[in-house]
Amino acid sequence: MDEAQLLQDFGDRVRALRLDLGVSQEKLALDCGLDRTYISGIERGKRNVSLVNIHRLADALGVPASDLFQKGGGK
Amino acid sequence: MDEAQLLQDFGDRVRALRLDLGVSQEKLALDCGLDRTYISGIERGKRNVSLVNIHRLADALGVPASDLFQKGGGK
Repeated sequence: MDEAQLLQDFGDRVRALRLDLGVSQEKLALDCGLDRTYISGIERGKRNVSLVNIHRLADALGVPASDLFQKGGGK
Repeated sequence: MDEAQLLQDFGDRVRALRLDLGVSQEKLALDCGLDRTYISGIERGKRNVSLVNIHRLADALGVPASDLFQKGGGK
């Protein structure tokens, strides 16, 4: 398992869904109750995000948590 | 968001998939490279599992990571 790649895939997916929504990292961070630098780290594949924050992201992005594990952009 | 409930939902899903496979917590732990007590904690909803370990569990259970975020048992 390529751990760096799976973190990057997750970050790419968060970014794609965020851009679909047309919101900034700042806005997403506010909606999640997380720090903007943390969102940035996620999108750069630098964060090993855990269940609670995965669900916060999914809620703020308006998708089921399972959607964050799909490849590529779009819903 | 009910954090305790979402951790329990995840644990219930791991347990359901593990029982579908007919493997013990010990066997799943070995397949994941994790400790059996950690698997037990996940199934009891006590662990805020992060991305790398979510993927280890999914690989050992033979499902895509997204399947761990479905409700209930069965594939």
